[in-house]
Amino acid sequence: MAALRSYLAEFISSFLFVFAAVGSSMSARRLTPEATSNPSSLVAIAVANAFALSTAVYISANISGGHVNPAVTFGMAVGGHISIPTALFYWVAQLLGSIMSCLLLRVATISHGIPAHAIAEEMTGFGAAVLESVMTFALVYTVYAAGDQRRGSFGIVGPIMIGLMVGANVLAAGPFTGASMNPAYSFGMAIISGNFKNQAVYWVGPLIGATVAGLLYENVIFPHQPADSARGLVLDGIGI
Amino acid sequence: MAALRSYLAEFISSFLFVFAAVGSSMSARRLTPEATSNPSSLVAIAVANAFALSTAVYISANISGGHVNPAVTFGMAVGGHISIPTALFYWVAQLLGSIMSCLLLRVATISHGIPAHAIAEEMTGFGAAVLESVMTFALVYTVYAAGDQRRGSFGIVGPIMIGLMVGANVLAAGPFTGASMNPAYSFGMAIISGNFKNQAVYWVGPLIGATVAGLLYENVIFPHQPADSARGLVLDGIGI
Amino acid sequence: MAALRSYLAEFISSFLFVFAAVGSSMSARRLTPEATSNPSSLVAIAVANAFALSTAVYISANISGGHVNPAVTFGMAVGGHISIPTALFYWVAQLLGSIMSCLLLRVATISHGIPAHAIAEEMTGFGAAVLESVMTFALVYTVYAAGDQRRGSFGIVGPIMIGLMVGANVLAAGPFTGASMNPAYSFGMAIISGNFKNQAVYWVGPLIGATVAGLLYENVIFPHQPADSARGLVLDGIGI
Amino acid sequence: MAALRSYLAEFISSFLFVFAAVGSSMSARRLTPEATSNPSSLVAIAVANAFALSTAVYISANISGGHVNPAVTFGMAVGGHISIPTALFYWVAQLLGSIMSCLLLRVATISHGIPAHAIAEEMTGFGAAVLESVMTFALVYTVYAAGDQRRGSFGIVGPIMIGLMVGANVLAAGPFTGASMNPAYSFGMAIISGNFKNQAVYWVGPLIGATVAGLLYENVIFPHQPADSARGLVLDGIGI
Repeated sequence: MAALRSYLAEFISSFLFVFAAVGSSMSARRLTPEATSNPSSLVAIAVANAFALSTAVYISANISGGHVNPAVTFGMAVGGHISIPTALFYWVAQLLGSIMSCLLLRVATISHGIPAHAIAEEMTGFGAAVLESVMTFALVYTVYAAGDQRRGSFGIVGPIMIGLMVGANVLAAGPFTGASMNPAYSFGMAIISGNFKNQAVYWVGPLIGATVAGLLYENVIFPHQPADSARGLVLDGIGI
Repeated sequence: MAALRSYLAEFISSFLFVFAAVGSSMSARRLTPEATSNPSSLVAIAVANAFALSTAVYISANISGGHVNPAVTFGMAVGGHISIPTALFYWVAQLLGSIMSCLLLRVATISHGIPAHAIAEEMTGFGAAVLESVMTFALVYTVYAAGDQRRGSFGIVGPIMIGLMVGANVLAAGPFTGASMNPAYSFGMAIISGNFKNQAVYWVGPLIGATVAGLLYENVIFPHQPADSARGLVLDGIGI
Repeated sequence: MAALRSYLAEFISSFLFVFAAVGSSMSARRLTPEATSNPSSLVAIAVANAFALSTAVYISANISGGHVNPAVTFGMAVGGHISIPTALFYWVAQLLGSIMSCLLLRVATISHGIPAHAIAEEMTGFGAAVLESVMTFALVYTVYAAGDQRRGSFGIVGPIMIGLMVGANVLAAGPFTGASMNPAYSFGMAIISGNFKNQAVYWVGPLIGATVAGLLYENVIFPHQPADSARGLVLDGIGI
Repeated sequence: MAALRSYLAEFISSFLFVFAAVGSSMSARRLTPEATSNPSSLVAIAVANAFALSTAVYISANISGGHVNPAVTFGMAVGGHISIPTALFYWVAQLLGSIMSCLLLRVATISHGIPAHAIAEEMTGFGAAVLESVMTFALVYTVYAAGDQRRGSFGIVGPIMIGLMVGANVLAAGPFTGASMNPAYSFGMAIISGNFKNQAVYWVGPLIGATVAGLLYENVIFPHQPADSARGLVLDGIGI
């Protein structure tokens, strides 16, 4: 039962995060046809990502650990904080949440198509994967720091920090790669828009970045961490 | 006396939240005639909603629970955390606060009319109600999580999170439905502007979303919660 | 000595707050001549106000109570939490900080004049004073709530909330009254720009709003507060 | 080993901060050729600075103290909270992190050059150094306040506050000096862009501001601080 609840929590949080992230992109396009060459659209999308991810992590923090992202789940599995079967169920929940959210947005707004993550024309897929990898490294490293119970009360602002890191990265690389850092987010948009171009970039990049972050945090920066102390965000050890 | 104080706190918080939310919309229109096709107006309004709601919830948190929204009160009544009569008085206080705020804005700024929430032309009322319902679900679910004392010190950032969730949703759906999530907010604008078109959307959508959020959080995600532990936001159990 | 330190802390915080608030307005004008009809300039100025006030309150919180505003000091004196002589020294420190900050900005940027708070043409001075009064009420009420030690750990995010409330109000009424809420801020700009038009509005409005907030919070919403428990923001009672 | 870990933590945090700060500037330029006369570009860059610095400080807070800036390290050395040799290694780590980040951005985005901090035409180098000095004073003063364990639980929001202060300053002076406050940030951009014009401004200004902040906080505002209690941000005294 606790396991089912945590899958449902990941589904809800992924649904709500993708709703705001994709919705903000659709809203910017509805307001102005030149949304993609407009710095204030970038601000709108970055702030929506930051605010929505902070909250999505917050509401599932004590239930599922607040991953909301297959790359984060992967990074946690690399560190041994989540078992492989559980990680697979998390992935399914996250992907379903994202797809359902994109579908709902498409149906409810009727005339508006769903956008998809895209790479700037002058860039290569390799360069984009590198950027996605660096940004997901930043995200997963922050998730590790936020969930590290040895850092005491700093955990209280952990969900905020995770959102701010993603918001900063969207501002940094949104016009270059779309700044996904989240395979579920990119996959949901691809499924509903039918545009799978460069989809591999949004899986390979984030998963590599998450792996490096998990290994570095656990083995180099903050070693000797007992195995269950970083299963994501849990404060004050409440029992569920 | 404690009851009267909590109604007054809801009145003040609703007044101040609607002041910033409606005022930011009026300010954007005063600056540029094409405010409604401008992503930076959307950012302005979303940030005003987020900042004002966070603070409005914060200042009334230990007095009335910091609802500031009839849909939140409804969601709390569904979960049994507030009695029906008290909920009705909360509604009256919230609606009065919103109406007075819109009236003051209209009188003080003289030449500017009050805007009203509106639905994008291409959308149906049903689609808009669905979006409002999803967004209010997100809000009320966050309110439940923020006020859940079993989540320990995460409650400290609860008011911030509630504001961020609303800010993200305004960015996601502002151009489609106005992103109200709050019947008092929409009703105050409608009364003072005299424009009641689609008003039902801003009641039916939020109340359904709030109901689902309350039932889901209490019965599925986080069951066995003792009846008085989530009466909204209360920290460190101070007595009033 | 402790008193001198608290005056100095008010001076520094007022200086740094006005630096960012006035600087952001000058920066917006330098970027584009039509800054005053541009919603993104409004966002820039509102965010600068919010971020700078949060930090200015934070750094002086345990020393002087983090007023950074003559209206806040007045509201605290009304509630009996600061003596009249101390309040006068706070006012001098706040006014000097603001004037010095505007002077430095003017000298360092050479060719740019200092702007001054102004009222929208179609509005009356009375309407503007009402808006300033309502917004300062919101600010001082938030300061009272943030410094109320009976609200326990909610105080930790108090400085953030004070900044967010001001940011929301700038978005709400910036194009109508300049959204000062702070006589020192308006006075510093007036002195250095030589433009004292409507200066009274920025004193009368805020002081009335602050008075109402202090009386209402202390006597109605949260009565029975022991006299020394709300001298501004102090956490964990450190001795200086 | 603990020392090596803290250098690595400074390297990672500096890398990630500069990635978002420089990336946001490149993104704004890619979106619109007139990015430098656009208030929404300024908002984008300021928010990226604020969010990224908050997170960069947060993730290294309990390891290296979360300096992420040679001026902060200098200000800590002035106060005696870090030894000169350690400070030198911190500088190397910060400079390397910044250079590597700019290099990666340049290579990955292919056609886009790296921008460099520049001074407004009408200003003198002296005026720019004064502004940089004031802003770095604000930053280092905030770092001292955030890391002061006598201020109790206020430390929890310290990393957020440090980011907000920098965000406010970017909005205040971005169009005048670039609002660096960080020699490593300016130096990395200069190395990779090959543009060293006015580089001295971004070293002299910040280092002077940091020195004044350290001396003032420790000797005047908050004296009698035991020597090891402000080595940057450490919460709950975890051992590494």
